[in-house]
Amino acid sequence: IKNKNDSYSNRGMTLEEDLNLTNEYYRENNIAIIHKKPTPVQIVHVEYPKRSAAVIKEAYFKQASTTDYNGVYKGKYIDFEAKETKLSQSFPLKNFHEHQIKHISSVLKQNGISFVILRFTITEDIYLLEGDKLLTFWNRMLDGGRKSITIDEIKQYGHSISVGYHPRLDYIKVIEKIYSFN
Amino acid sequence: IKNKNDSYSNRGMTLEEDLNLTNEYYRENNIAIIHKKPTPVQIVHVEYPKRSAAVIKEAYFKQASTTDYNGVYKGKYIDFEAKETKLSQSFPLKNFHEHQIKHISSVLKQNGISFVILRFTITEDIYLLEGDKLLTFWNRMLDGGRKSITIDEIKQYGHSISVGYHPRLDYIKVIEKIYSFN
Ligand SMILES: [Mg+2]
Ligand SMILES: [Mg+2]
Repeated sequence: IKNKNDSYSNRGMTLEEDLNLTNEYYRENNIAIIHKKPTPVQIVHVEYPKRSAAVIKEAYFKQASTTDYNGVYKGKYIDFEAKETKLSQSFPLKNFHEHQIKHISSVLKQNGISFVILRFTITEDIYLLEGDKLLTFWNRMLDGGRKSITIDEIKQYGHSISVGYHPRLDYIKVIEKIYSFN
Repeated sequence: IKNKNDSYSNRGMTLEEDLNLTNEYYRENNIAIIHKKPTPVQIVHVEYPKRSAAVIKEAYFKQASTTDYNGVYKGKYIDFEAKETKLSQSFPLKNFHEHQIKHISSVLKQNGISFVILRFTITEDIYLLEGDKLLTFWNRMLDGGRKSITIDEIKQYGHSISVGYHPRLDYIKVIEKIYSFN
């Protein structure tokens, strides 16, 4: 028997593709204005051929200094990072870079809404985990504790995001529940 | 006689360089967390040499779909575009792309703080013009009116940003005056 939700399952789409479609839906319906930031690239050499577009001939990927997505919902600043794991029992913290953790911490200090969206590719389960919770697990690691967040901890402290059709991943619904907007 | 402000003058720095230094100052002092978005690039071909970093061998500049800068100040979403002109009597509206205008309009609908920073390179005068004012001038153009904003209009409806040392361009000071934060 097929589960009803199967018709909405990810069919090999990446978390990023799903979030891009979700954000497009939010933008088109004036629900929220959230974009993925462009991949940061260090441009070394550009050629300018006659009568055609400039071509970048040498460039390198740069480490991002922030998270992947940001924007606005009801006037408030929204900022998040999306990550996937192939593990099923825990989410490794090494998936986050130190400067991303620093950025999340800075956004929280500035009263912005900061979180991560975690996807377990095997089960297709997706969770929103608030920035302050992530920092707690990160600090536990720095204090010599485990280098990952267990699935039980994510279920306890995170918020499940259901996969739908339009929007694909309605994380604003979760945001609306856990933060206050006036 | 040298004007006292000359010691703080731009000495050939671009508006973007000044804003990057300003944002760095804001970040380091936890005043606001605002970044310039990376230049969007369409990556076509990447090579992966053994024992060294991936090299982008063919890529093209993409039209940005949003503005240049965004971030958070006191929980509120901040979004702006920075533009310079070599003219002295008016600021040409053709400096803005239609999708940037659309983005500014979307951010305003979502109650975000949206504005442009305009610099007259000859006089080194810099103004902050709120998004809704820019839209008014843009719509005047669409209605067959003038294709620029006169310097007098910018002086009347905009807010002067003074050039300092630390921070270079204290636009948050202006923001603090014209918007309400609770
Ligand atoms: Mg990511
Ligand atoms: Mg610009």
